[in-house]
Amino acid sequence: MLKHFLVPEKDQVLVSEEKARAGTQAVFEKMGIPADEAASCADVLLTSDLRGCESHGISNMLRAYIASYGDGSYNAHPDVKTVRESSVTATWDGDRGLGLHLGPRAMNLAIEKAKEHGMGAVAVKNTRHFGMLAYYVMQAIEQDMIGMAMVSAGGGAQVPTNGAEPAFGTQPIAWGAPADKMPPFVFDVATTQVAANKLALTRRIGSKIEPGWIANLDGSPIMEAVDVPEFGSFRMLPFGGTRENGGHKGYGFAAIADIMSGILSGNGPGFIAEKDYSFFVMAFNVEAFIDTNEFKTDMDKLLTKLANTTPAPGHDRVYYAGLPEHEETEIRRRDGIPYHKEVVDWFNSMSSELDLGMSMP
Amino acid sequence: MLKHFLVPEKDQVLVSEEKARAGTQAVFEKMGIPADEAASCADVLLTSDLRGCESHGISNMLRAYIASYGDGSYNAHPDVKTVRESSVTATWDGDRGLGLHLGPRAMNLAIEKAKEHGMGAVAVKNTRHFGMLAYYVMQAIEQDMIGMAMVSAGGGAQVPTNGAEPAFGTQPIAWGAPADKMPPFVFDVATTQVAANKLALTRRIGSKIEPGWIANLDGSPIMEAVDVPEFGSFRMLPFGGTRENGGHKGYGFAAIADIMSGILSGNGPGFIAEKDYSFFVMAFNVEAFIDTNEFKTDMDKLLTKLANTTPAPGHDRVYYAGLPEHEETEIRRRDGIPYHKEVVDWFNSMSSELDLGMSMP
Repeated sequence: MLKHFLVPEKDQVLVSEEKARAGTQAVFEKMGIPADEAASCADVLLTSDLRGCESHGISNMLRAYIASYGDGSYNAHPDVKTVRESSVTATWDGDRGLGLHLGPRAMNLAIEKAKEHGMGAVAVKNTRHFGMLAYYVMQAIEQDMIGMAMVSAGGGAQVPTNGAEPAFGTQPIAWGAPADKMPPFVFDVATTQVAANKLALTRRIGSKIEPGWIANLDGSPIMEAVDVPEFGSFRMLPFGGTRENGGHKGYGFAAIADIMSGILSGNGPGFIAEKDYSFFVMAFNVEAFIDTNEFKTDMDKLLTKLANTTPAPGHDRVYYAGLPEHEETEIRRRDGIPYHKEVVDWFNSMSSELDLGMSMP
Repeated sequence: MLKHFLVPEKDQVLVSEEKARAGTQAVFEKMGIPADEAASCADVLLTSDLRGCESHGISNMLRAYIASYGDGSYNAHPDVKTVRESSVTATWDGDRGLGLHLGPRAMNLAIEKAKEHGMGAVAVKNTRHFGMLAYYVMQAIEQDMIGMAMVSAGGGAQVPTNGAEPAFGTQPIAWGAPADKMPPFVFDVATTQVAANKLALTRRIGSKIEPGWIANLDGSPIMEAVDVPEFGSFRMLPFGGTRENGGHKGYGFAAIADIMSGILSGNGPGFIAEKDYSFFVMAFNVEAFIDTNEFKTDMDKLLTKLANTTPAPGHDRVYYAGLPEHEETEIRRRDGIPYHKEVVDWFNSMSSELDLGMSMP
């Protein structure tokens, strides 16, 4: 992760995984979600925080979720309906359930179909915030499968290349594959230059954002380093940034996430569906294409090559997607998760307000 | 397409689709490919030229293909073997056949499987240059399906983010979906900042390339506008360019293309397989997930919204992937394809050398 998003050391409070997990599960239970499902929801957030992806962990999300369960926009008891189903596909109506409440279940169905037939995909409409997509592709990786996930996240943030009006959300896409001895490849990115939650982090941390990350309201890219403006006073650029720098590629992938998640699920394009998020998860059973051991050995060859690449001047090391997160998880499991002190204060006051009987650190 | 890649008007020679198609098919037949398959190969190249994607049309590719059939590295009579097959997947050994010779057949099998079961995917190892990926996703679109295609194209061009040694080729990815009244969404990009063939075009045209498109041999990005250096004296950067500008996203998608095409097919990672290209094509049957008419109506809503977006200052219009290519096809079908005069000269001398009895314009 870029230094722009790291909590400065002086503001860090280390909290053990165990304590953070118990506190998070208690919150979901308090929202009315049954204990086993609350544990699954907490696992998605904790996995984010352990991987160093705190943009999608407790810090930003938990209080937003509490507010949304509170005002009735999230349904703690979604009655998920199967709209269509085939041997390898399914379409669900998520009944306003939180994405990370339904996501693990959807990926499990995709995996089940892939186990039997080679591939499986589930498109889910009428759902809410999805959390860190890496979580779902990691479910597939654990079953020796390739995982893929996409989200259509409304239409109010991201402008098309050279456009002044937004048409998409941040539209994340994730893809992952297992290896043998090497940590797995786990790729998870916003199709904007930067995830909205990471912009929120820079504000908490007080760091500037890079030229070409966002645009003015008229669509013109802001080409200086600036403090994050107030939400609502800027647009997000597709990854790549300007057209010359390949912004049309980010824009294209954003549209793909809208098509695969929003339109294919029946949720409709994000700019119409708005806060009715939709998602698409898929599993490819490696064994259907090739001997799984051969695949994993070749993955090791690729990932070893990448991790041992001679770095360019000014850099210590070359990474691949999933490697730094794997290393960070080992550190955080051992030392605790470095939350911002403001987050810990919030947790403790919320815990006493909701009578959770939990405290950090 | 950026102006960097357009043939200057003074160098253009307009050639009718009919004449270019007949000439191209005659070349493939001369290489020993049966007439119907030669017509299919020619259709891939001509579709590129009609869409304004001349980087992947006759100008760069046909003479390269002739050389490779001539020196025996391409097999004009590939004996394609099915390595594995399930109801929705297949893995083929392409027996050194040209990618665009086998690609249409592979996508047809994916479509057939998707028709019956909802999805279909075919991974092909031991093949050669694939041409314009948009072609294959357009095959799926014609059947009211979503199409996807990826290629692993060796390991000698693209550096990982912050790396000095190349690990990938240009690793293109394409995705497309049908609409009702609007031209379909057809997205096809290199995961490098720019396709290798487009760099060749800038040399023919004499235009400079943009800052952050390529790197020095030590991996440091070249941050000025420069003439394209000699091939072999630079590295290609993943799309996004530098890490701060999101280059790790292009790098991740390049790895995905290597995994889905190279490793899943059994071809191995591109940096080992080198000129043994591999590809992956997939079809998603819309009807398996949702009523096809509802899908296409929603696609129209999205594409209409995008095409009618108020442009940012300094821009006339907002496009979506596939729209300018659709418009260009109509113009070129009517007026002819504007080849560079040097390409026409080459065609005519090659034609007389190979005794094709064809001439342009």
